[in-house]
Amino acid sequence: MTTGEALITKKVIAYSFKHLMKTKDFNKISITEIMMQAELRRQTFYDHFTDKYDLLAWLYHQEFTENVEHYIDYEPWPEILKRVLSYFEKNKLFYQKALAVTEQNSFDQFLTEHTHQFFITILEKQEQPDLDLTSKTSSTAYSISEYSYFYAVGFTGIVKSWLLNNCREPIDDITDYLTVIIQHSIIQLLKNKETL
Amino acid sequence: MTTGEALITKKVIAYSFKHLMKTKDFNKISITEIMMQAELRRQTFYDHFTDKYDLLAWLYHQEFTENVEHYIDYEPWPEILKRVLSYFEKNKLFYQKALAVTEQNSFDQFLTEHTHQFFITILEKQEQPDLDLTSKTSSTAYSISEYSYFYAVGFTGIVKSWLLNNCREPIDDITDYLTVIIQHSIIQLLKNKETL
Repeated sequence: MTTGEALITKKVIAYSFKHLMKTKDFNKISITEIMMQAELRRQTFYDHFTDKYDLLAWLYHQEFTENVEHYIDYEPWPEILKRVLSYFEKNKLFYQKALAVTEQNSFDQFLTEHTHQFFITILEKQEQPDLDLTSKTSSTAYSISEYSYFYAVGFTGIVKSWLLNNCREPIDDITDYLTVIIQHSIIQLLKNKETL
Repeated sequence: MTTGEALITKKVIAYSFKHLMKTKDFNKISITEIMMQAELRRQTFYDHFTDKYDLLAWLYHQEFTENVEHYIDYEPWPEILKRVLSYFEKNKLFYQKALAVTEQNSFDQFLTEHTHQFFITILEKQEQPDLDLTSKTSSTAYSISEYSYFYAVGFTGIVKSWLLNNCREPIDDITDYLTVIIQHSIIQLLKNKETL
């Protein structure tokens, strides 16, 4: 099997799994069921994934890459942010179920890690890549990575409660809100280091 | 029963409950058990609380008030922040169990709401209480309450993973980190509105 064929098989499995997750809890979905939905032999699952958690982690990673990393070099970051939020809204039934999975590779951990990487990339694209943040009251300096981690955690929390509230707030409103917060923190980081 | 007596009884019940939570999951603790531990009649529980969730919510509120609201008018906020984090560390066994309660009045919701109120208070103590934040790309303006909500969500996420990691990071380090982030966002809000 070529890499391309393997990717297609993985996507078929992931798509079937996502479809089942719209109506059924993660813990109630069996591998047999996923593969019946995919119209593939049960054994094929294990050629690609070790278990359901591995499949979930792959799916998170794959779709985040398709919605963020493929665009990061030529699209302004607020556009990418909107794309990610639209993707979550479109897949809200799936993510509402995924949020209930508290074990390995939970949604929190996945979204925090990926958003963290996204923010580091945004910050490093700015003019002063070696900038760091110092406390007024201590001698501690924070790196871009440490600093942006807080924003990744906040972003994850906001997206999570938005999904749990059935994406009631319109995409444009939540995108604008998060853009202002991030813009704000980045501008501050780049311009006002000396005031801290 | 006077208000003072009622408060003492509530505290005895809450203390017994906290003690049990150090070794046992929330869902496995019965009201009978709490009241045996408290050396009080079972019926007395219902004179003060409707159920275990009500007790948990009261305990959160009571201890947060004792650690934050009693100090807010005469202590600098970074001191209060440190007090809160020290309180969580001291009660980490309890909070590690409390984090697993996902139903009514969950830890996330409690800590976000209380921290949000704390940040609003800090911001309103500053010189320009009517300040708001506007986006560069849209005409939306955010109120202090909307703006500080993001920071409350981020704060909650950071404290939560710190507790789940058994408070491995020293109190001074985590206090400094969160102080810098908040200081940073408040200073930005007050000084650099026009740059956004």
